[in-house]
Amino acid sequence: MNVTVAGKTRHYRTVSFDAKTNSVLLIEQRLLPHQFKIVKIPDFRQTAAAIKDMVVRGAGAIGATAAYGLAQGVRAFKGTNLNHFSEHIKIVYTTLKNARPTAVDPVNAMNDVWKAMLSGETVEEQKALALAAAEEFANNDVQHCKQIGHFGAKLIRNGTRVLTHCNAGWLAFVDFGSATAPIYTAQAAGRKFRVFCDETRPRSQGATLTAWELSQQGIPHDIIADNAAGHLMQRGEIDLVIVGSDRTLGRTGEVANKIGTYTKAVLAKRHGIPFYVAIPLSTIDWNLKSGLEIPIEERGQEEVLGAWGMVRLPGRRTPIFTYTRVADPQSTARNPGFDVTPPDLITGIITPVGIFKPEDLWKNRARLGHLEN
Amino acid sequence: MNVTVAGKTRHYRTVSFDAKTNSVLLIEQRLLPHQFKIVKIPDFRQTAAAIKDMVVRGAGAIGATAAYGLAQGVRAFKGTNLNHFSEHIKIVYTTLKNARPTAVDPVNAMNDVWKAMLSGETVEEQKALALAAAEEFANNDVQHCKQIGHFGAKLIRNGTRVLTHCNAGWLAFVDFGSATAPIYTAQAAGRKFRVFCDETRPRSQGATLTAWELSQQGIPHDIIADNAAGHLMQRGEIDLVIVGSDRTLGRTGEVANKIGTYTKAVLAKRHGIPFYVAIPLSTIDWNLKSGLEIPIEERGQEEVLGAWGMVRLPGRRTPIFTYTRVADPQSTARNPGFDVTPPDLITGIITPVGIFKPEDLWKNRARLGHLEN
Repeated sequence: MNVTVAGKTRHYRTVSFDAKTNSVLLIEQRLLPHQFKIVKIPDFRQTAAAIKDMVVRGAGAIGATAAYGLAQGVRAFKGTNLNHFSEHIKIVYTTLKNARPTAVDPVNAMNDVWKAMLSGETVEEQKALALAAAEEFANNDVQHCKQIGHFGAKLIRNGTRVLTHCNAGWLAFVDFGSATAPIYTAQAAGRKFRVFCDETRPRSQGATLTAWELSQQGIPHDIIADNAAGHLMQRGEIDLVIVGSDRTLGRTGEVANKIGTYTKAVLAKRHGIPFYVAIPLSTIDWNLKSGLEIPIEERGQEEVLGAWGMVRLPGRRTPIFTYTRVADPQSTARNPGFDVTPPDLITGIITPVGIFKPEDLWKNRARLGHLEN
Repeated sequence: MNVTVAGKTRHYRTVSFDAKTNSVLLIEQRLLPHQFKIVKIPDFRQTAAAIKDMVVRGAGAIGATAAYGLAQGVRAFKGTNLNHFSEHIKIVYTTLKNARPTAVDPVNAMNDVWKAMLSGETVEEQKALALAAAEEFANNDVQHCKQIGHFGAKLIRNGTRVLTHCNAGWLAFVDFGSATAPIYTAQAAGRKFRVFCDETRPRSQGATLTAWELSQQGIPHDIIADNAAGHLMQRGEIDLVIVGSDRTLGRTGEVANKIGTYTKAVLAKRHGIPFYVAIPLSTIDWNLKSGLEIPIEERGQEEVLGAWGMVRLPGRRTPIFTYTRVADPQSTARNPGFDVTPPDLITGIITPVGIFKPEDLWKNRARLGHLEN
């Protein structure tokens, strides 16, 4: 999407590749929303480190980063011996895979790239095929998000007040985003509407990343405390909820997403407000038979006990980015990172091939890309 | 309640009075949970300033502070002329009333004190009656909270996992608190249980004040993000919710309380978890006919856009208390401070005279202290 820095507006992808210098280019997301910076990474090991250290995050974005990282690694190989080359590919693949060992997107993305390389007969041919496949993966990610936007934008009319939770925006993909795609498409269609961003404690991705995205696109929005959505719904100030998903169960229609998503779904149901989940097809898990099987990560307590932000200090001109301890010094915290929303609370799942009721995913599995074994 | 400072445990009230020095003693609540300090205030104008500047907050606590402040002011009068004395009382009364002009508790408390003075025939007699009435107001506040604890403690058994929201603890009253009273009484009865404190963004009174209170009393507890309660309820980890109230409508059973209370009530209802509201009788509004008549204060945006806490700086040994800007620098926020929970979501209202269904408040109005005009 477009980003304006020091008065200049330019289009950026979250992840891109510079073939001349064999470098992966990433938006340094840990500095947002306070600073916008592109990092240029010349080596696949550093690309793996960037994934590990959360320079880049979000399913689509780390998938594309791993795909480019694999192409970057194989392109750095010196020589023409296919056996040596094959050993080298394995090292690159494993290094990138281990950067975020529980994530499925980097693995799927790299498998695509590796598979594409197999039709090459020389090292040089395979290198070229790797880069082409990585570019195709990234372009497909963008295309899928745009299709989500195409189907989802119909839900947003002039005057619609949309609530979002966390960040399933373009920063989490290569471009355009999932939950934000209908918003950007509706804006491109000239519609005037307003967005509420749930702050999304404890990591505040709504107040930081989603709000930054909307500011950059000039979309009117307000950040609200996670506590406020219920009240705003009660007073008739929210018309539509759109969220993303970390994992959607194809067999049951259950949606795992950032902690607090379930609460918003319960509130939307009580108030008869449509609640939509926007997902690329890679998010669908066709194996699990119950949301209870989804492991809920219990994250570090410090996230709940404090906050990260910019502090202005007496006598210093520029604020510094630092951690603030908010809570009682003797207290502990519980910090479940995700929750599971059942299908009875979900109006529809917005996918790149159309909007489905959550309970209809399984019977539409062929259209939704499920490969029968 | 007991507070342990540097290894020494002592009983404190939130508000008390030292007759010898004619001083109001307050816990400096703006420093909690990071520092415990008693401020000694020798003059009624400074007492009014302490109310205004939120050194003390909470309905019962500011009521008692105003009562003591009035006694303090009249005791400072020099002379015996009753007419001059009467003029002086009016100045003291108005000064304290204007400290928090929309609050009803200071006015009610001071009216009690003033009324009690009327039976005195000399300035000296009236001074003595004022202090006695202020002490009685404070003692009654404690007694009412203890009675809430008596009735509410029956809800907490061994193993009960209680969720609270915001701070309706002893810091908000003279002692013991409203929502916390059942917790303290159950602890005194030897029961073993656990408390979840909602962080309560944007001002984080749960993570700061309630968690500090529970730490001081040695009650096992965890702070959670406001987003997490729904998930914990879904997984069967919460058995009971108890919250306080800023205003309870005697005619309808609607409860106005800190933003986010309504959300917890909706979630509790979905999960069949009992949801109780603990209130002193002074919280009941017998006039309003609908919760929609309750004005919802829209507070400053900076509360949502950042957080207050302790920051450790490089090169400095002691952390400093400061504001951190968390959110996107270009974004704005909405910040409704309260919400209204309807009676269909409330299992019971715990009062000093018993537990009532919210819809039964009006027919029990005589017992609940409503004076018919």
